[in-house]
Amino acid sequence: MKKAKKKVNAAIVIIGNEILSGRTQDVNVVVLSKWLNTLGVKLEEVRVIPDKENSIISTVNEIRKKFNYIFTTGGIGPTHDDITSKSIAKAFNLTYGFHKGAYNILVKYYGKKKFNAGRKKMAKMPDTASLILNPSSGAPGFIVKNVFCLPGVPSILKSMLGGLNYKIKGGKKILSKNIILRTVESEIAKPLEKIQKKNKKVEIGSYPFFKHGKIGVSIVLRAENKNLIFNCEQGIKKFIKKKSIKIL
Amino acid sequence: MKKAKKKVNAAIVIIGNEILSGRTQDVNVVVLSKWLNTLGVKLEEVRVIPDKENSIISTVNEIRKKFNYIFTTGGIGPTHDDITSKSIAKAFNLTYGFHKGAYNILVKYYGKKKFNAGRKKMAKMPDTASLILNPSSGAPGFIVKNVFCLPGVPSILKSMLGGLNYKIKGGKKILSKNIILRTVESEIAKPLEKIQKKNKKVEIGSYPFFKHGKIGVSIVLRAENKNLIFNCEQGIKKFIKKKSIKIL
Repeated sequence: MKKAKKKVNAAIVIIGNEILSGRTQDVNVVVLSKWLNTLGVKLEEVRVIPDKENSIISTVNEIRKKFNYIFTTGGIGPTHDDITSKSIAKAFNLTYGFHKGAYNILVKYYGKKKFNAGRKKMAKMPDTASLILNPSSGAPGFIVKNVFCLPGVPSILKSMLGGLNYKIKGGKKILSKNIILRTVESEIAKPLEKIQKKNKKVEIGSYPFFKHGKIGVSIVLRAENKNLIFNCEQGIKKFIKKKSIKIL
Repeated sequence: MKKAKKKVNAAIVIIGNEILSGRTQDVNVVVLSKWLNTLGVKLEEVRVIPDKENSIISTVNEIRKKFNYIFTTGGIGPTHDDITSKSIAKAFNLTYGFHKGAYNILVKYYGKKKFNAGRKKMAKMPDTASLILNPSSGAPGFIVKNVFCLPGVPSILKSMLGGLNYKIKGGKKILSKNIILRTVESEIAKPLEKIQKKNKKVEIGSYPFFKHGKIGVSIVLRAENKNLIFNCEQGIKKFIKKKSIKIL
C-alpha cells in the first residue's frame, strides 16, 4: 500500500510599512499561494507586520513552530529600512555578518569597483544560512531552518521561486473545481449547506460577484481527491437543475 | 496648552480561504489603510486567516487587546462558509441570534416574501452588537467593543466606511511626502541611513521600482508633523544634489 502523504502547510510574513500604509498593493501572496498549491503545500496564514525588529523576531519565532514552511517577503535590500536579515539572525540566535557565498555572488555581479557599502549590506545575513539564488538582480535570499526569506519586489520574488521547488517537500496536492452560477447566494445557501454537511472532506466556498453589470456566484470545491470533488459537484448540479439556475 | 493627541492604531483580520488559496487578490487592505490614515489611525498589522471558527476566535481575542481598533473583512454573508458573526459572538461570549435592528433592515430591504432562510441568516449576529449600515446591499455589518465586522466584497465594504467616520476616534494624522529619484538604492543607502539617524521621528522608507523600462527609487517620509518632514526632506535634497541625482 502506498503511504498516504501528510498535509503540509505554510504561512507568509510580509514585512513592509509600505503595505500597512496603503501605499503599495501586495501582490506576492497570490503568487506564493498559487506556487505552493502546485507543490502540495497549503497556505494557512498571512501576516503583514511593520519593519520593526521586535515585530519580526516575535512573529517569526511564534509562527515557525506552527507551520511547516514560513516565507518572509521584503526587507532584504541595501537601505537602512531593510532589517529582515539582521532580525532573522537575532530570532535564531545566529551571527549576523558577511555570508561568504552571498559576498562572492555579489562581488561578481557588480564588479569590485561598483561593490559599494549599500551593496555589501546585501551580503550580510545569518552567516550559516543557505542561499536562495536570484536570477534577476543578483542579491540572494536565504533560508534558516524552515524560514525562507525573499525580497519584496514582485518581479524579483517571482524569478526566485523556480530554484526553490526542490527544497520544498509538499504533501498531497489540493485539487479545485469552480462552478459559476447565475444566481444570488441567498437562493442557494440552504441546499449548499446540506451538501457541505454530506461532503465533509470537500471545502465548499461560495463567492458572490458583480461582473459586466451582472451578478453571480462562484462555487469553489477544494479537496485532495478527484472523486470527492466529483461527488460533491453532482450534488450541486442536481439542486441547481431543480431550481433552474444557469451554469455559466 | 492643547493636549497632544495620542497615537491610535488598528489591525485588520481578513477572514477568507479565497485569499489564502490565491484565488482572490485582496484589495481591502489598501482601502481600509488609506481611510484609516485620513482619520489619524495607523494600521499596524494585518492577518489573513481561514474560515475556521477556532482561528477566528483565537486571532480576534489575541489582537483586540493589542490594538485600538480591529476590522474584520469577510464571512458575514448568507452561506454556510460565512461564520464570522457566529465566531465573534463566541469570542465575546455573547448570544448569537437574530438582531432586531438587522432583521428589520433586511425584511424591509427584501420584502417579506423574498426574505428567505439565507437572507435571514444575515440578521444573525451577537445580539447586542451595534450595526454598521450598508447603503449598497442591505445586510449590515456590526461592532462589538473595538471589533468592527465588515463584508469581504470590496465595493460593499467601501460603501460602508463613510458611515463609520464618526465612530472612530483617531489620533494625530500621519503626514507623508514622496521623493522620487532616478537612482538605485545602493547609491543612496549610506547617506539615507545618516539622515534617518538624525531624524528619528520621521519614518523613512526606500522603495525601488521599475517603470516603463526605467529604474528609480521612491523615498517616503512619514511623520506627525510638517516641520519634521520638511527638515528631513532638506537633508535628502542636499545629498542628492551633491551626487547629481535627478528628482522625478
